[in-house]
Amino acid sequence: MQWLLFLRAPLGLRRCWKVSGVIALLVGSFAASAQTRQDSVTIRRLYDEALLRGQSYENLRHLTTRIGGRLSGSPQAAQAVAWSKKTLENLGLDRVYLQEVLVPHWVRGAREKAFVRIGRANKQPLAVCALGGSIGTGGRLRAGVVEVNSWAQLAALPVLEVAGKIVFFNRALQPVHSETFQAYFEAVDQRNEGAVQAARRGAVGVLVRSLTLAHDNLPHTGAVRYEEQTPKIPAAAISTLGAEQLSHQLRLTPGLELELEMHCQTLPDVLSYNVVGEWRGQTYPEEIITVGGHLDSWDLGQGAHDDGAGTVQSIEVLRLLKATGLHPERTIRVVLFMNEENGNRGGLTYAELARQNSETHLAAIESDAGGFTPRGFRVEASPAVLTTFQRWRHLLRPYQSDKLSANQRGVDIGPLKTQVKALISYDPDDQRLFDVHHTAADTFDKVNRRELELGGASIAALVYLISRYGL
Amino acid sequence: MQWLLFLRAPLGLRRCWKVSGVIALLVGSFAASAQTRQDSVTIRRLYDEALLRGQSYENLRHLTTRIGGRLSGSPQAAQAVAWSKKTLENLGLDRVYLQEVLVPHWVRGAREKAFVRIGRANKQPLAVCALGGSIGTGGRLRAGVVEVNSWAQLAALPVLEVAGKIVFFNRALQPVHSETFQAYFEAVDQRNEGAVQAARRGAVGVLVRSLTLAHDNLPHTGAVRYEEQTPKIPAAAISTLGAEQLSHQLRLTPGLELELEMHCQTLPDVLSYNVVGEWRGQTYPEEIITVGGHLDSWDLGQGAHDDGAGTVQSIEVLRLLKATGLHPERTIRVVLFMNEENGNRGGLTYAELARQNSETHLAAIESDAGGFTPRGFRVEASPAVLTTFQRWRHLLRPYQSDKLSANQRGVDIGPLKTQVKALISYDPDDQRLFDVHHTAADTFDKVNRRELELGGASIAALVYLISRYGL
Repeated sequence: MQWLLFLRAPLGLRRCWKVSGVIALLVGSFAASAQTRQDSVTIRRLYDEALLRGQSYENLRHLTTRIGGRLSGSPQAAQAVAWSKKTLENLGLDRVYLQEVLVPHWVRGAREKAFVRIGRANKQPLAVCALGGSIGTGGRLRAGVVEVNSWAQLAALPVLEVAGKIVFFNRALQPVHSETFQAYFEAVDQRNEGAVQAARRGAVGVLVRSLTLAHDNLPHTGAVRYEEQTPKIPAAAISTLGAEQLSHQLRLTPGLELELEMHCQTLPDVLSYNVVGEWRGQTYPEEIITVGGHLDSWDLGQGAHDDGAGTVQSIEVLRLLKATGLHPERTIRVVLFMNEENGNRGGLTYAELARQNSETHLAAIESDAGGFTPRGFRVEASPAVLTTFQRWRHLLRPYQSDKLSANQRGVDIGPLKTQVKALISYDPDDQRLFDVHHTAADTFDKVNRRELELGGASIAALVYLISRYGL
Repeated sequence: MQWLLFLRAPLGLRRCWKVSGVIALLVGSFAASAQTRQDSVTIRRLYDEALLRGQSYENLRHLTTRIGGRLSGSPQAAQAVAWSKKTLENLGLDRVYLQEVLVPHWVRGAREKAFVRIGRANKQPLAVCALGGSIGTGGRLRAGVVEVNSWAQLAALPVLEVAGKIVFFNRALQPVHSETFQAYFEAVDQRNEGAVQAARRGAVGVLVRSLTLAHDNLPHTGAVRYEEQTPKIPAAAISTLGAEQLSHQLRLTPGLELELEMHCQTLPDVLSYNVVGEWRGQTYPEEIITVGGHLDSWDLGQGAHDDGAGTVQSIEVLRLLKATGLHPERTIRVVLFMNEENGNRGGLTYAELARQNSETHLAAIESDAGGFTPRGFRVEASPAVLTTFQRWRHLLRPYQSDKLSANQRGVDIGPLKTQVKALISYDPDDQRLFDVHHTAADTFDKVNRRELELGGASIAALVYLISRYGL
């Protein structure tokens, strides 16, 4: 609104307007046209519906507290498939169906623990958890520890100093990033690649500092990668305080030993599903807009922010759009992906089926950054399509959801990249996400009702615009 | 960064640049000059210091968990004065001093409770708390209840239907506002004015629905106003769930009675203080930039978001600026105000002394909207000064603190209005504030360390710019 006042002020501006239409984009706003007014009204109705009668929060309560953590292959994942299919069916869509996805089935097992051993009498517990996909320790693994803070440091170590040891990856996330995702992306290679790199040098296990900026005693799980030609070794995460305690002890007693016990194992693959709900467009039914989150979560908590939030917001997008009474011009498809956390087989399956069926995909939007207060969206698209998004920003400004950034982050929609005009991730504030991400603390009570509902409305607003105008 | 790319694209733009310099403001960004680069570097250093070595969070831990709730006149308020004076002295400023402020001294008393009574046997408890400043009930108050949802409804009631009754103000906050402050401002008149309006019609007490969008059982306190010529009647807040329960019961049993017991009272005024820390400018020492929050809080919780956050952020602003090694051009004065919650005597005193001493005030910035993730600032100033702020926005954009809005909200700085070029309130995200505002739940654990530290850095960045360039 302030911009419009400015727009009226400068005398020379009208001339500039003709010189370069791009100024309209630069100011992120237009003179309000009738069309814009109608869009404003529709978007206002989406937010009203979400804030007055939103159902995301109660859906999330069910998904997180009645079903709970839902790792691929688990009974809870199967329950989540059944529940979300039924919930979509209750919306009265044109079609709700399942896509078969064969998923890995890893189980954490009964217990997992770790101790620092200094001499015979001194035994200190450390807060650890197995990384997803890790092999178990087959009883108790006892070994010396070598701490590394970079790949270069690992590479420089003589094999004799690594062989038979547990490699402790203790490179911390950098707090200076104003967005916590940046800090996460810089450090996640330790968790993904640590086991392979350490095993190549003869290590017998890895312990990885938890990927969080918080200083507490929560271990953060996440996937570890193995490769065929390298021995698989047990891999665990250690809390940040535990990592600092262990690092301190190693300085005092370099020869200390660590005891690690994990009973996790990988069972045969299990048949699971993506859950898909489709509302066909009335004018261009062949043009598809995908909006989704992932149904699976890690097993330690309830998968509330990751990604219960994205699941219930995606369902809510369709409910909100239905509540406006408008019929979409283009087809809107909600996809609740399976197996984002440890394989992305749902995302790969969805893209592969889209290819096989020669579908026309306009945009794919994923919410998988938590149910926090909205900021905007992250978009990967051509300059022309980005220009369209810039032109829509002013419609989202009243709801503080108008920030546009590059580098979308949706893992499930990633495989669609070459088949779609825009890949988009919903971009809420991320300061609190990595406090709970992949931990036992990712629970329903960490989600704020209004923040969650505002997110669903923001995504619905963008879907409405794409559906109405195309890309 | 995206804007700069756009700036290079349009061919006709350079001509427009001369036609109207205001375009620079419209895009919210410049071509980066050396000066801008230096400002960027300095601001980056402020955020680095806050994120790497920030002290707000540990200061807040002390203020909230070691001192606790600190209502004006309480021993805790006196402890907070002493602690914050010492904390400022440790920063090595030019001058740290106290300003005497005579404050009201209201105490809640031993206990407060309320029951719905239906017949002789049915007695249901309600979650209530006395509003700050309320008189006690002098034993147990027992009366019928009349519910109103608007002033018009109250005015239309025959006096006979109100006299001798407890008026129950049950107008709810409206969830449709995307900013919760808006909903709060629309409903706060019930709490401020309810007792006077009800007493004028002969009521013997008021019960006010808690000013929150949450549905829970927490009562939210806050100040109630009395006036000389109208009888003072007891005033309490009731939780939102309690309000809905009571409203439901009233529909079933219009003649039900309410029992209210409160032992609160107002004691004689107490001598207290604003705490002031001053760092004199090297070039324009007579030009003052005030940055502050309020030291006092309500008694129910720990005053963590309201306004422990603003207190520790204001102290941190000076520490961060000192850490850059730069000496400010203009004088920066941290003011920790006393008695914002129930009288604003600290704010009034500060402005009065500024008048008496003929001080030149450039800007006053208050942080009193919680320690949540930054969005930007709310500014009241002349169009010319607003233009200056618009020109600085791009420097805050990397930290997501660049939103500028009208209508600043700082109560303590309000009395300075006619003596200052810009009144500014720090404007963090407000979705979670009214969940805990003025309740027993406003505690340290509700504050996120990074969100708090980012807020201090954002304020420091703005203070740096004002100090360097003036207004």
